[in-house]
Amino acid sequence: MTHGTVAALKPERIAINQATTRKQWDFREAVEGYARHGVHWIGAWRDGIDKYGIAEVKRLLADNGMSVTSLNRAGPLVGLDRANRQSALDDARRALDQAAEISAGCLPVLPGSLPPGSKDLSGVRTQYQDMLAELLVPARKAGVPLALEPLHPMVAADRSCMNTMTDANDLCDALGPGIGILLDVYQVWWDTRLEAEIMRTGKDRGRLLGFHVSDWLVPTRDMVFDRGMMGDGVIDLRLIRGWVEAAGYDGPVEIEIFSSLDWWTRNPEDVVKISLERCRTVV
Amino acid sequence: MTHGTVAALKPERIAINQATTRKQWDFREAVEGYARHGVHWIGAWRDGIDKYGIAEVKRLLADNGMSVTSLNRAGPLVGLDRANRQSALDDARRALDQAAEISAGCLPVLPGSLPPGSKDLSGVRTQYQDMLAELLVPARKAGVPLALEPLHPMVAADRSCMNTMTDANDLCDALGPGIGILLDVYQVWWDTRLEAEIMRTGKDRGRLLGFHVSDWLVPTRDMVFDRGMMGDGVIDLRLIRGWVEAAGYDGPVEIEIFSSLDWWTRNPEDVVKISLERCRTVV
Repeated sequence: MTHGTVAALKPERIAINQATTRKQWDFREAVEGYARHGVHWIGAWRDGIDKYGIAEVKRLLADNGMSVTSLNRAGPLVGLDRANRQSALDDARRALDQAAEISAGCLPVLPGSLPPGSKDLSGVRTQYQDMLAELLVPARKAGVPLALEPLHPMVAADRSCMNTMTDANDLCDALGPGIGILLDVYQVWWDTRLEAEIMRTGKDRGRLLGFHVSDWLVPTRDMVFDRGMMGDGVIDLRLIRGWVEAAGYDGPVEIEIFSSLDWWTRNPEDVVKISLERCRTVV
Repeated sequence: MTHGTVAALKPERIAINQATTRKQWDFREAVEGYARHGVHWIGAWRDGIDKYGIAEVKRLLADNGMSVTSLNRAGPLVGLDRANRQSALDDARRALDQAAEISAGCLPVLPGSLPPGSKDLSGVRTQYQDMLAELLVPARKAGVPLALEPLHPMVAADRSCMNTMTDANDLCDALGPGIGILLDVYQVWWDTRLEAEIMRTGKDRGRLLGFHVSDWLVPTRDMVFDRGMMGDGVIDLRLIRGWVEAAGYDGPVEIEIFSSLDWWTRNPEDVVKISLERCRTVV
């Protein structure tokens, strides 16, 4: 089996996205909590900056030896009327500044999808590409890469008009430097083309900007908030990590579990402990 | 817009899949009900044969001037232990004989997916291909084409390890004559590659064996049984019908709505009436 050839995940590569303890811990508690368990990478959400201010956020990060993988997020950019489109771009620029201030590794850009009443999926995809091109100008200036995260086709109508690694790679090819891909296994694990498209990111070392892990549960009871703990579902996480590393990625491996039905209801200390254990045993 | 170039759907091309009135009508009621509304194609389920016997089924079809688009179904073929795999193949052979008896246009083969405890998606995909190759021998002899229907990636873990038109086309290329594709818009509408993969079916006139319509609702409340009536969701049905016809398909356009939350609770006469009206206005 391929598993045998993938080296154990080094603890210093582990990151936790704040979403994983979103209902239990705010930004400060998450930073301190993850650090307590020896984790020194955080996927941060902007609500921490809203609550504490950028100076205090920087102090908390520094005091806890914590680096930021990504600042979640800019977008949605499409599915909006003209006025909201402009304010989405303005907000994305603010997010770029914030990401630069806290030295986040990248800024994920949630696409959005069809506006109410529209069936023009191809149109919103074109519009998304155009808006990314516009956002790339300040992103390059700020030195913060934009991250495209393909989301599962089951959310194609409402959350993301970009749904596969193929689409994300095509967009990167079209848009040039300053943009890359955030690969979340939950979104793309099913894709026959996954290995080939991961290898495609390897042609340009900087293209893979992040690697998120969780698991696909059977049955899945909610289309957004029922992700599983690594090892509790059907995704061969070690196989996919092997592909990602074969493509040249050696950055953080980030735990990101949206789970209103289970993990968000648990003691966050246990969530972190079990997550780290699973990183050793199945990721 | 492309809509302008697609001719109105001729009523004689409309088919209804029994699934659409599955909770209200049995096979006999469906055949008589659809015929009453001027529909002369039915997507039949095998429970009609179980209940009435093949001779009576043939009589009901003939008496109502009804032809069968497909007999649903063979499979699942994978995700089974060895004993169940053999009985799935035996059952699929029986389905082939039944499909031949009632002159069904094709026999859809539900793949199935991961067996309990497995994460080997690539392995079950290979196994599915091997079992299709085995089933193709009697299928060619019976003169009944096997139909591959890619199912949405959200059911990749449990219902179907084949999830895109690309995968279905690749399988057809690999397996040779006697096998084709059933395109259900609900499963594939989101795919950036859809138009190209539909055109790919056109290289071999016989490859597209069926075209199913329903709609994708926002929000979707159930991952299997919440399909929408054509026009109530976000799928540009006329655009996709245009692609299908440009690829050379001129067979039945089949209404297939799985809807435990809505349409299965309604008066079936109304379901048929509204379906036919929507075929005129949005398909």
